[in-house]
Amino acid sequence: MLSLPCYADIAAAAVRIEGHAHRTPVMTSTTLNRELGAELFFKCENLQRMGAFKFRGAFNALSRFNAEQRKAGVVAYSSGNHAQAIALAASLLEIPATIVMPQDAPTSKLEATRGYGGKVVLYDRYKEDREQIGRELAFRDGLTLIPPYDHPDVICGQGTAAKELFEEVGPLDALLVPLGGGGLLAGSALATRALSPDCRIYGVEPLAGNDGQQSLRRGSIVHIDTPQTLADGAQTQHLGQITFPIIQREVTDILTATDPELVAAMQFFASRMKLVVEPTGCLGLAAARQMGAAIRGRRIGIVVSGGNVDIARFGQLLLS
Amino acid sequence: MLSLPCYADIAAAAVRIEGHAHRTPVMTSTTLNRELGAELFFKCENLQRMGAFKFRGAFNALSRFNAEQRKAGVVAYSSGNHAQAIALAASLLEIPATIVMPQDAPTSKLEATRGYGGKVVLYDRYKEDREQIGRELAFRDGLTLIPPYDHPDVICGQGTAAKELFEEVGPLDALLVPLGGGGLLAGSALATRALSPDCRIYGVEPLAGNDGQQSLRRGSIVHIDTPQTLADGAQTQHLGQITFPIIQREVTDILTATDPELVAAMQFFASRMKLVVEPTGCLGLAAARQMGAAIRGRRIGIVVSGGNVDIARFGQLLLS
Repeated sequence: MLSLPCYADIAAAAVRIEGHAHRTPVMTSTTLNRELGAELFFKCENLQRMGAFKFRGAFNALSRFNAEQRKAGVVAYSSGNHAQAIALAASLLEIPATIVMPQDAPTSKLEATRGYGGKVVLYDRYKEDREQIGRELAFRDGLTLIPPYDHPDVICGQGTAAKELFEEVGPLDALLVPLGGGGLLAGSALATRALSPDCRIYGVEPLAGNDGQQSLRRGSIVHIDTPQTLADGAQTQHLGQITFPIIQREVTDILTATDPELVAAMQFFASRMKLVVEPTGCLGLAAARQMGAAIRGRRIGIVVSGGNVDIARFGQLLLS
Repeated sequence: MLSLPCYADIAAAAVRIEGHAHRTPVMTSTTLNRELGAELFFKCENLQRMGAFKFRGAFNALSRFNAEQRKAGVVAYSSGNHAQAIALAASLLEIPATIVMPQDAPTSKLEATRGYGGKVVLYDRYKEDREQIGRELAFRDGLTLIPPYDHPDVICGQGTAAKELFEEVGPLDALLVPLGGGGLLAGSALATRALSPDCRIYGVEPLAGNDGQQSLRRGSIVHIDTPQTLADGAQTQHLGQITFPIIQREVTDILTATDPELVAAMQFFASRMKLVVEPTGCLGLAAARQMGAAIRGRRIGIVVSGGNVDIARFGQLLLS
């Protein structure tokens, strides 16, 4: 029987990342609150170091390496933000990092990963299995593999964002969290149960890749092909062995958003809140806008997961 | 002899705006610090209410209206951000507002002003005199005119941004401030002299409209035609009777930036700091990048004045 992480592990992670990760601002929009008749609080992880919440989990996981692990190095596979996060955290902790990334990852993410000193190994995400490549590298060179979401230290690092949110704004009626593999959602759920026990917790994933929603309804992990969606941070094929049971136990429901809804939310963030948010980071706002009467008069937390989008692509989406 | 405002007036303004204006975050970029060999602190007034520092001065000025003034209402002329600021502050304080705006102001600014409940009167900024139109409306309807920069309450409201910056990061070696009519620069200079006396203070204006630089060098206010520049918040034709003597007394120098330098800074803000910054708000970063060895090893404050740019225009500039 798998032992699941708990809130005490998130509190310990918060101590480890303090002074290394930013305590990101919580923002509000009077315009939006008036439009929706609710009070929305955005936890801006697009303003986190390297532009996404992933830095929290990566730094937490790498801080726990022993001397031997630090010397041999870390290997990670990632569609982008986890790669940069591991590369940056490893460079800060002086641990060698090898990152397995898809050939079609956004240029900004490939460049940033290399810029942080990570060694990049490319693969074809429609044909090859990144987990297998990562495991092989780990075995061959004695590296420690840190998966992008299904790892207790990663989950608990990610949970520190929601912890900070509740510490700043107090209890909420609902929390909306982008969902890919479930690291952020599981961590957020554990923090929520401890700090705002009556708060409803929603995962939000792209409609084209709604494996999380299917899994929750079926009661077991559903695998899908890599979905085609703008939300490249949520193109995961399945939830994890650790994230799924936490999500199953704690999460109220899993919602979906379409690509046009994500673009509309991205345009709102840029024009009214002056924030660059990547499509995956727009999932929460897109879902809140669908909820209508269900959130009226409520206090809603939204985790804005990241802002790493190719700037030319971002420009095109603003014009679309 | 004109009596100039002083730091005590900024401290009083800070009390008046507390709980109404946002205490905006101060951001840093490790990448940029490494690139410039300096420590840069960005005071993010693009994340201020209505998207610019102007809300501070407007709210401070309107809070000081007496009962009669409140009832009759306020009139303001502005190329954009001051208009929105007066409209929003007036609506919060339940004061009727009339705003004189140029026909070619960005659509986002016209819409936002009307959205905040302001009555908009349009004029042609290449042919008509907005100050005269404002004065005529004030006379006809008994309105109180709040000019965009040359007013002690406006200047002192704007100075609260620099006050917050020094309170958060401590003394600095230099502060870079966008310069249009000089309200933000004069207010920032007064706050700087009180809180970080040895800090150098630089105004930064668009090269195409360098009347401030000319004025400082000549020792008297130089008037120019409305300059053609992307920095629409700095298209003023001259400094003010109150802002100029403060600038003359306190400011180290006035620097300039070209439109391409502003676009490059805007792209950096978007891609690395995940912030939407309007061209005028990019003046400080553009100047810092020119300064090279002069800022190496130094702690530099930069006031990011606003983020109000038409989102389609912003998209185009990101692609350019």
